[in-house]
Amino acid sequence: MVSEWISRDAARCWHPFTQMKDYELQPPLLITRARGAKLFSADGNYYYDTISSWWCNTLGHNHPRLKAALRRQMNQLEHTLFAGITHPPAIELAERLTAIAPEGLKKVFFSDNGSTAVEVALKMSLQYWRNTAQPQRSLFIGLDHGYHGDTVGAMSVSGRSAFNEVFSPLLFDARHVPAPYCYRCPCGKQYPSCGIACLEPLRQICAAEGNRVSALIIEPLLLAAGGMIVYPREYLEGAVAIARGCGAHIIFDEIATGFCRTGTMFACEQTAATPDFLCLSKGITAGYLPLGVTLVTEQIYQAFYDDYTRKKTFYHGHTYTANPLACAVAVEALKIYTEERVVERVQSQAVVLQKAMQQFRHLPNVGDVRGIGMVGAVELVRDRATKEPFAFEQRVGFQVYREGLAEHLLLRPLGNVIYFFLPFCLRDAEILRIVRRTHAVLAHLK
Amino acid sequence: MVSEWISRDAARCWHPFTQMKDYELQPPLLITRARGAKLFSADGNYYYDTISSWWCNTLGHNHPRLKAALRRQMNQLEHTLFAGITHPPAIELAERLTAIAPEGLKKVFFSDNGSTAVEVALKMSLQYWRNTAQPQRSLFIGLDHGYHGDTVGAMSVSGRSAFNEVFSPLLFDARHVPAPYCYRCPCGKQYPSCGIACLEPLRQICAAEGNRVSALIIEPLLLAAGGMIVYPREYLEGAVAIARGCGAHIIFDEIATGFCRTGTMFACEQTAATPDFLCLSKGITAGYLPLGVTLVTEQIYQAFYDDYTRKKTFYHGHTYTANPLACAVAVEALKIYTEERVVERVQSQAVVLQKAMQQFRHLPNVGDVRGIGMVGAVELVRDRATKEPFAFEQRVGFQVYREGLAEHLLLRPLGNVIYFFLPFCLRDAEILRIVRRTHAVLAHLK
Repeated sequence: MVSEWISRDAARCWHPFTQMKDYELQPPLLITRARGAKLFSADGNYYYDTISSWWCNTLGHNHPRLKAALRRQMNQLEHTLFAGITHPPAIELAERLTAIAPEGLKKVFFSDNGSTAVEVALKMSLQYWRNTAQPQRSLFIGLDHGYHGDTVGAMSVSGRSAFNEVFSPLLFDARHVPAPYCYRCPCGKQYPSCGIACLEPLRQICAAEGNRVSALIIEPLLLAAGGMIVYPREYLEGAVAIARGCGAHIIFDEIATGFCRTGTMFACEQTAATPDFLCLSKGITAGYLPLGVTLVTEQIYQAFYDDYTRKKTFYHGHTYTANPLACAVAVEALKIYTEERVVERVQSQAVVLQKAMQQFRHLPNVGDVRGIGMVGAVELVRDRATKEPFAFEQRVGFQVYREGLAEHLLLRPLGNVIYFFLPFCLRDAEILRIVRRTHAVLAHLK
Repeated sequence: MVSEWISRDAARCWHPFTQMKDYELQPPLLITRARGAKLFSADGNYYYDTISSWWCNTLGHNHPRLKAALRRQMNQLEHTLFAGITHPPAIELAERLTAIAPEGLKKVFFSDNGSTAVEVALKMSLQYWRNTAQPQRSLFIGLDHGYHGDTVGAMSVSGRSAFNEVFSPLLFDARHVPAPYCYRCPCGKQYPSCGIACLEPLRQICAAEGNRVSALIIEPLLLAAGGMIVYPREYLEGAVAIARGCGAHIIFDEIATGFCRTGTMFACEQTAATPDFLCLSKGITAGYLPLGVTLVTEQIYQAFYDDYTRKKTFYHGHTYTANPLACAVAVEALKIYTEERVVERVQSQAVVLQKAMQQFRHLPNVGDVRGIGMVGAVELVRDRATKEPFAFEQRVGFQVYREGLAEHLLLRPLGNVIYFFLPFCLRDAEILRIVRRTHAVLAHLK
């Protein structure tokens, strides 16, 4: 029965980020139900969802309150276009988002996922400068190891990688500055004595062509898909100051880091930096439904607000913009984040996780252990002394993934980086169990 | 109470494709529930959803079977990542889609909306040529008046318009050929004696740089957002033959035209043309939840299927790829399309609609009346003899929208084109009522 479903999958489905031939080695799991932090397969196994189903399932699967919210909304209004029309779930969600967002973010533009939330920010930034008579500002700056999504605009500002290099003929020209990747410091220095020397390239770009810069886009404190790179807040504050110094916009991509993930509602709260644009998705619906939002300041909004004939309108939209079902679930998720003091819970869970992470340091192939909030990562290396990575062909991450399954863990390494992106519904004992089992997997790595 | 919600909306929400200052003239409707083809506002009014909530709500709002499908799925598995994992709703949906899709489309790649479905097709086409040793093929061809979405890749292949001209610094270089816009024929000829002369520019591009072309992207039979331009099947067949002649891929964008809209399951069925890629969204969930899919041939799929180390993997994905809730609703929608013989119903409704549309021809400012299936459009002109359009500043469409509301119609003109994109749950008498009321609005236009 299971094998039949797997064959049917192979005949018709093309999975994301997947070399489909790998399914000959390791067929996909057939998951038929889920509850809390566990995914259940049709053959009776369970797997800890250690990456929160791609970093979105914050509160656990099959959540009674989220289901109830969905049920209520579907009996009222499942969907309507969002031009010339508004509805209570969108209004309430926009109010709740702006209430918890960093200072100054007052307006909410809805879309369907993280990539579109980023595209909206890029397009708004560009058009802002056209609407305000600085059309020469069309240059975007991103970080190496930055990741902002898979549509052409989002890829263009992401760091160049295996994810997007083949698509380079389609990408627009953006500047990329070295990442604050302390374990492999681009300046060969050590934090904190480095004085955040890695900011220099950004300083140079802004000095040379600052009046051409539209915006800097950056993931606060955690370069997630780029390797779970946790970086010092001084870098973020410094980068923002430099970009603001040349008059550019600041776009924070908190698609992965938002909604309690790092121990604060948004990661940037742990710094003095604030953005002009904030892109959110993933945890906004606690992992139930696709939804993206781009929050902006009043100043951005006002640059588009004018008589129709002045042609300042922002022409962007998707059919399912502000889908009422997704908005209603998001409103409920935000209520839970607040009412159940999830930020405090994550802070206390983070102590447990980050302490437990230290046991990885003793393993021979562990080069670096890093983490923030409910994110913990281990970078495996062939040689600790030289930091020489395992070769791509060795597929260490794939080995770990396969061994993890035998331990009831759904791990999904990023290359040589093994990481947790844990749901917040885990009990402390479960966090320790997941770390312990992963330790066992890594200890037996061939 | 309503006015309070509207103020709260104005304080926090930025609506798509909307000059927000227009809400000073005409505040948005506060829609709180919907049923069948009607949207109900909080102040007790109803409005016919004459554009199926941006062309997606095919079967009517508050549909018992779709709600039941959503309820069942949410109690099993609301979501999981779709890499290394599969689930029954995705498998069943992929099977049903490939079963009804044009010949040769065998694999399904999931994403979140129409824009991403198009981005996936563009990226796959480009990478296909790299994986098969023809990396010089990186040029895309689209149509003037073509519209494929709002992300940077999708905009790049769309016709240049007010929707995207401001974003031109971000767009990649694509070729655009004149649209088969018979009412304003680019060759000054008349169908059918024209011999489809408007294909000539495409022929020239393919002759000059055919071996550089990655794909032609086109909306079969109806250029929707570009002005509801219905065009002859000979154009589609000719364009496909020309592009295939130079070895390029064919991408059909049936995001608007798919799922019975034009009187067949997909518009291209009314022609002899078939694609290598088929992009679908909107009606796939009957207007409930965001979901996009890109169907491809086995040949495309196989060009990516290889040992991992050969680096042919397609690196694209979104967090909510193949969201089980959306997939379950889509499976139910597809069951309804088949079981309730919706194609036949639309064919019979189309006779009623298209006949009724003829009454617009007698109005003084109507330049053209056109339609296909449950789509009907009227192009207003200042002067019928010269076909001179109304000036942009006159905002004729906006006037029609406002007058329509008084007649309980939610109309949303595209510039000077007034159109219907009717839900299939309407009774014939309601179709006639909607057309009659719209006629009254246009007859009294100042």
